[in-house]
Amino acid sequence: MEINYMKVDSYPGSDKVYIDGKLFPIKVGMRRVNLTPTVTVGSDGNKVFADNPAVYVYDTSGVYTDPNVEIDINKGIKRIREQWIADRGDTVQLDGITSEYGNQRLNDHSLDAIRFPIRHRPLKSRDGKHITQMAYAKAGIITAEMEYAAIRENMNNEACGIETYITPEFVRQEVAAGRAIIPANVNHPEAEPMVIGSKFLVKLNTNIGNSALSSSIEEEVNKAVWSCYWGGDTLMDLSTGNNIHETREWIIRNCPVPMGTVPIYQALEKVNGRVKDLTWEIYRDTLIEQCEQGVDYFTIHAGVLRAHAELIGSRLTGVVSRGGSIMSQWCVLHNRESFLYEHFADICDILNQYDVAISLGDGMRPGCIHDANDRAQFMELDVLGELTKIAWEKDVQVIIEGPGHIPMQKIRENMDRQLSSCHGAPFYTLGPLTTDIAPGYDHITSAIGAAQIGWYGTAMICYVTPKEHLSLPNLEDVRNGVIAYKIAAHAADLAKGFPGAQLRDDAMSKARYEFRWKDQFNLSLDPARARQYYVETHNGNSKFCTMCGPNFCAMRLSQDIANCIADDVK
Amino acid sequence: MEINYMKVDSYPGSDKVYIDGKLFPIKVGMRRVNLTPTVTVGSDGNKVFADNPAVYVYDTSGVYTDPNVEIDINKGIKRIREQWIADRGDTVQLDGITSEYGNQRLNDHSLDAIRFPIRHRPLKSRDGKHITQMAYAKAGIITAEMEYAAIRENMNNEACGIETYITPEFVRQEVAAGRAIIPANVNHPEAEPMVIGSKFLVKLNTNIGNSALSSSIEEEVNKAVWSCYWGGDTLMDLSTGNNIHETREWIIRNCPVPMGTVPIYQALEKVNGRVKDLTWEIYRDTLIEQCEQGVDYFTIHAGVLRAHAELIGSRLTGVVSRGGSIMSQWCVLHNRESFLYEHFADICDILNQYDVAISLGDGMRPGCIHDANDRAQFMELDVLGELTKIAWEKDVQVIIEGPGHIPMQKIRENMDRQLSSCHGAPFYTLGPLTTDIAPGYDHITSAIGAAQIGWYGTAMICYVTPKEHLSLPNLEDVRNGVIAYKIAAHAADLAKGFPGAQLRDDAMSKARYEFRWKDQFNLSLDPARARQYYVETHNGNSKFCTMCGPNFCAMRLSQDIANCIADDVK
Repeated sequence: MEINYMKVDSYPGSDKVYIDGKLFPIKVGMRRVNLTPTVTVGSDGNKVFADNPAVYVYDTSGVYTDPNVEIDINKGIKRIREQWIADRGDTVQLDGITSEYGNQRLNDHSLDAIRFPIRHRPLKSRDGKHITQMAYAKAGIITAEMEYAAIRENMNNEACGIETYITPEFVRQEVAAGRAIIPANVNHPEAEPMVIGSKFLVKLNTNIGNSALSSSIEEEVNKAVWSCYWGGDTLMDLSTGNNIHETREWIIRNCPVPMGTVPIYQALEKVNGRVKDLTWEIYRDTLIEQCEQGVDYFTIHAGVLRAHAELIGSRLTGVVSRGGSIMSQWCVLHNRESFLYEHFADICDILNQYDVAISLGDGMRPGCIHDANDRAQFMELDVLGELTKIAWEKDVQVIIEGPGHIPMQKIRENMDRQLSSCHGAPFYTLGPLTTDIAPGYDHITSAIGAAQIGWYGTAMICYVTPKEHLSLPNLEDVRNGVIAYKIAAHAADLAKGFPGAQLRDDAMSKARYEFRWKDQFNLSLDPARARQYYVETHNGNSKFCTMCGPNFCAMRLSQDIANCIADDVK
Repeated sequence: MEINYMKVDSYPGSDKVYIDGKLFPIKVGMRRVNLTPTVTVGSDGNKVFADNPAVYVYDTSGVYTDPNVEIDINKGIKRIREQWIADRGDTVQLDGITSEYGNQRLNDHSLDAIRFPIRHRPLKSRDGKHITQMAYAKAGIITAEMEYAAIRENMNNEACGIETYITPEFVRQEVAAGRAIIPANVNHPEAEPMVIGSKFLVKLNTNIGNSALSSSIEEEVNKAVWSCYWGGDTLMDLSTGNNIHETREWIIRNCPVPMGTVPIYQALEKVNGRVKDLTWEIYRDTLIEQCEQGVDYFTIHAGVLRAHAELIGSRLTGVVSRGGSIMSQWCVLHNRESFLYEHFADICDILNQYDVAISLGDGMRPGCIHDANDRAQFMELDVLGELTKIAWEKDVQVIIEGPGHIPMQKIRENMDRQLSSCHGAPFYTLGPLTTDIAPGYDHITSAIGAAQIGWYGTAMICYVTPKEHLSLPNLEDVRNGVIAYKIAAHAADLAKGFPGAQLRDDAMSKARYEFRWKDQFNLSLDPARARQYYVETHNGNSKFCTMCGPNFCAMRLSQDIANCIADDVK
């Protein structure tokens, strides 16, 4: 199969630059937005040019925006972490994949046509070695991943000489304490390391994935690449349709950001959608299959207990988490405790061999305003706190998933309870949506809640697209979802007073005041769209826009006032 | 001229209903969304139908969604308040318009082709009579307008038998205290009365209007009607282009919501854009011209003082309010105090003859994150507080305009300071935008801030369209702006715990859980869009959507769990 990759452009007016590590031989990619000079007319009537410093932007696009790198989706992108991992000498390379299902797919030659062309032999920890970022952090070891993540966080700070507290050692401390994670499966060396924690920039996750009713591998790979281009920090492949295994391989091999999945989805597909037939053994094999492919974090709904099923009766929309509803139904059908809960320590013992992080799923998250902050939700949160401690004992990195649908006045309680119940582990929320009545616009209902909870301390926000509740998103929906969430994350970064975050706003505002239109486009979250809206009604550069017309441009008038006052002074 | 009106549809699945007043012979229009029954299968295998109560929705669309009313844009809509005003016997009907400019336009026969076909003789107060809603309220008089507004606020409460504090008497008290206004020029009897105040539902204003570079009368009339259809509570005509006077007449005669303007825009057009040539006399004539046409509230930047111009030097984007920059420049050019400030009492003496409310413009609002909450902004706010007292003495209703661009952590201070500086007058904010870096998406950057400040107590939020900072919005941009702000306003209503607001969310969520797709569409803020997104990928009703596919629909699984538990019990 040849994948038809919709090539992303380089970011306009920008250079891809690389910053060298100080502790490790790493090169941290970032985007430098170059600005045009400010032009004024001097007292002698000649033009005077004053340079505007470039603005550095956190770059999630990986090599896709490096004009010096030739992209071949059929080969996968550069495996930048391969050597770092090898240098540590604590992993072994297996002869091949070991999961039963993985081998079954490998031996099914009818799949050759859709298989990713290159095979990599998986790594796992050497016997007795603790290879997770948390294990290193606890042992006082700073890794290349930690330095890489730290450098990214400080983009404008370093460039502008601002002192910051975010050093590699600070990252290590946060990871050691469980307050931050660096999702970094040794089998996904293509991913550029990044850190998720409340003391860092707010991150955003995008969901892609096919369903039984629509979408192809090609479409999903393109969604993945473009979501990174628009600014997604991590990516979840939530495929529930055909060829999940093969789709995932294509995505991981081409994915410059950490990737997550919900393994129970694929496990359910393996038993043809019959919840009753799910077993620990099938689930366990699925974990190994995905660990070996390179998934960086798993959503695991281990906090949904048999007892919780009874609590949903008083709800308006029951259980709306897919994983949660599967496990809840399994408990009821078997009248047994959840195998995810009972085998949680076993799960951790598998995951820490690859450094796969756990995103503890909130299976009982409210699916509507009515059900927000109810007993089922907070009872599960307490269970997630217990499980966090078990994972940490086994050096597995943990984040905690959160809602969902929450009215604004109840959002703060979610953050406060999460921090106390889960011992400071990073919070990762879906929205929350602040009203139920706007299908078709849920990127907006939820960006409102996401900005707010991000400000309160949520480390990562999971995007919602305009098609939520209605259908599977297409590429344009992914774009609208990602940009809405970049807005929410950045608004939260500003509100948190993050050093350097406001630099970009200030550069934008200065460009706006000086009618440097191209700089405005290039500094914006979606340069192509900003430019398009402007160009549709303008001819060339002008000292006003069609919104106000020439006589009513406040910024032009405002400059005139400044000039009047300056003239008075002369 | 024949206006080509793009007919709005009736709201799908809904009836236009009218509730009778108890104090006055008024009929308050509202929208009733009729729901389909819940269908389950009984123990005998037969279908069981359970009714779902209709949901009442606050309706800003006026007669446009009444299938029994024939709309003729060339005649204007029904003048529902005409009789109420006549019944009070405290106005006189003039022989014709009295403003110099109005008469000049009337006598210019080259304009006959674009003039609204019907002429109404203006009303003003009878000598010695105080005809503003505030004057009545202070005198202990409940008006038909007050009862109308109260009934609208209680839509679902009354229908569902919920007790509420929002009675006509309560509205009167709030208006008397200046904490709420009912914009209701006696010359705009077409408008359905509504109340703006922090104890009521959060309202949203939409801006339309041409500029010198684009747009026609026809386009503006259509934007006006459609903005009411989508949910705009008030409408500002910010035209700065050609034929402002005639455009406004067309809009007012067809506008079922209160309409505002910024008179300085037209005054400036009258002096061909030369700020220096602006005079009190030209401005005064413009006020009378617009009072007689029926504008319900004027934005007046009377708080921008000569001294303030000095303060903008430390700003990144100077003065971004158009009216503010005009007045600031005027003060500098003449080295005089603002004529709006000096003549503020005179302005009030004009406005109270028609009951035109004042929206005190925030000429010094910050135009970027950098300038938020600075000295210029808050100094002006104190002046607005002074002016509020002058207006109240003359029974003129007042709202206070607010920013602008404010990062989330600085929003609360805006609300708190406004309440204390302006003695509890309603706050009316533009956004605020919570970051500067997303041109093309500023309906989202600002909906985040608007929801938050609405929750804190802002009475009305002014929408921002995706084209803000780039160009003039078209009809689709108006739609996106209005819906984003309906979301923000409703999220704020939920957060304020407004009685009855959550009823619609709950009905939506129940419909969602029961796969009543049509009910979901009909209950949503934009039924057409929700339906469109769904239909694009579905064939008919189904017990899942393409987002999850059949095996992964959490709601279906959740219902199965409920059924399992129920079966166990039997």
